Amino acid sequence: MILSVIGLGLIGGSIALDLKKRGFVNKVIGVDNNTLNAHAAKKLGLIDEIQDLTTAVQAADLVLLAIPVDACLRVLPKIMDLVHHQIVSDLGSTKEQLIESIANHPKRSQFVPAHPMAGTEFSGPQAAHSGLFDGKCSIICNPEDSDKKAVQLISEMFHCLKMRCVFMDAEVHDRQTAYVSHLSHISAFALSLTVLHKEKADKHIFELASGGFDSTVRLAKSSAEMWTPIFQQNKKNVGKVLQKYIDQLQQFKDLIEKDDLNGINDLIFEANDIRRVLDQKEKNEKETIQQASKIKTGA
Amino acid sequence: MILSVIGLGLIGGSIALDLKKRGFVNKVIGVDNNTLNAHAAKKLGLIDEIQDLTTAVQAADLVLLAIPVDACLRVLPKIMDLVHHQIVSDLGSTKEQLIESIANHPKRSQFVPAHPMAGTEFSGPQAAHSGLFDGKCSIICNPEDSDKKAVQLISEMFHCLKMRCVFMDAEVHDRQTAYVSHLSHISAFALSLTVLHKEKADKHIFELASGGFDSTVRLAKSSAEMWTPIFQQNKKNVGKVLQKYIDQLQQFKDLIEKDDLNGINDLIFEANDIRRVLDQKEKNEKETIQQASKIKTGA
Repeated sequence: MILSVIGLGLIGGSIALDLKKRGFVNKVIGVDNNTLNAHAAKKLGLIDEIQDLTTAVQAADLVLLAIPVDACLRVLPKIMDLVHHQIVSDLGSTKEQLIESIANHPKRSQFVPAHPMAGTEFSGPQAAHSGLFDGKCSIICNPEDSDKKAVQLISEMFHCLKMRCVFMDAEVHDRQTAYVSHLSHISAFALSLTVLHKEKADKHIFELASGGFDSTVRLAKSSAEMWTPIFQQNKKNVGKVLQKYIDQLQQFKDLIEKDDLNGINDLIFEANDIRRVLDQKEKNEKETIQQASKIKTGA
Repeated sequence: MILSVIGLGLIGGSIALDLKKRGFVNKVIGVDNNTLNAHAAKKLGLIDEIQDLTTAVQAADLVLLAIPVDACLRVLPKIMDLVHHQIVSDLGSTKEQLIESIANHPKRSQFVPAHPMAGTEFSGPQAAHSGLFDGKCSIICNPEDSDKKAVQLISEMFHCLKMRCVFMDAEVHDRQTAYVSHLSHISAFALSLTVLHKEKADKHIFELASGGFDSTVRLAKSSAEMWTPIFQQNKKNVGKVLQKYIDQLQQFKDLIEKDDLNGINDLIFEANDIRRVLDQKEKNEKETIQQASKIKTGA
């Protein structure tokens, strides 16, 4: 099977690397508007050859879009126009608008909207690495609108990446990612800005920052190119979730100002329940990796 | 030198462990209201013996308080009443109230207010471990109000823990920790609560959470026993900082709702400057550890 990857950054590069390494595809063709990125991806061994979009799609059996979600809206219809037997999937963080953009395309059923829930705060082909997806979860949206064999192929691809698949409506996906992914990015960006503004007056303020700060602010390294269009496309959900987060912070502020120690204690006890969630997640990841090593996937 | 540690949790246990291991003290006496904790600390080899507060202070050369900041306010005056030649330091996250509480004590100069900027989201003697403080920064407040030899001893103690010392006013300390430590805890608690509330309607929401969420929410595992009194004692600063953080989030929300992509891009670019800060911190930590291995400290 020949894979064409459109966008050779962290996600595109990492997926290409592991699908080839694990024998799911025989050859990887790479496409990137940024020729420096494309050449770096080739040099790093992430792809076998560089092509333009049309050639890459026509030569492929499987086409994966790994570009920012605004670019996906422009590029996906072009790709679908080129498709014969090819199966196409995207890997973006928002789904409703993208699906809407090709809702009436005659080749719609050859497209499988997907979102592997993995990433880091780094970007570009240099950030790509093997094992990025291991143990994580991948979402496949609106599978009833795709060809069964196409959904099957994309599911097998994710199993080869040692991921478990969850099927859901695009609408549910966009609402839930606003909570568990988009919000944590904005909370980190805002934390970074709040302390950076203070640094102008207190030059040595970061001397006091410990590992806890680093961890909470880590996502603020993430790129605007990727995140601005995500927030735009998911603004309906992101706006609501941000308001809930602000209300929660305001509740903390009110309780602290009123010296309501029992109230603060209760909130923290409740927040501590995240231990259950994080422990369960860790367990799920281990089980997914164990499960994956039992399943044989092939090209 | 004999060390008495009051409070045998993560901080007290870890400091006892490394000061003994690295030869700064010959013997560690432990005090803890919670007898289970005290026995666990002894069994884990964090301390040599368990004593009551009075016996422990009287037998010591150096007394370290590693208890929640509300308990510090109650216990520190008692300790200072027992002091003869002993040097006393606390390791708490707020400083102004504690210093005020013994401002007129005749033994004030034998107390050195300090705050090692290290920790994890875990608590209790089981969480204590060697190397917790390595490379980090420790704050010593208002050194002009302490005996020079006392400040010297506490500085040497932190160098033995492979830390660098920064001297500052208690007022500046409390303001700055509100930004780089207290805020990130509240942001994590609020993030946890926001998503946990949503979980009640969307049972599988955490399926979608990736490593970025885990990292941003990690501090929400932290204990109420420790954090509620910190927020209370530092409410003046925490309130102001929380308001700035809320304003920053509101700015994001407004820009997203207005589809102001340039505005969002600008904010993210600005927030990305945290890369510089985190890189510098990493460099500082490495240099501090290298420096520490050159300095010989002894009991």
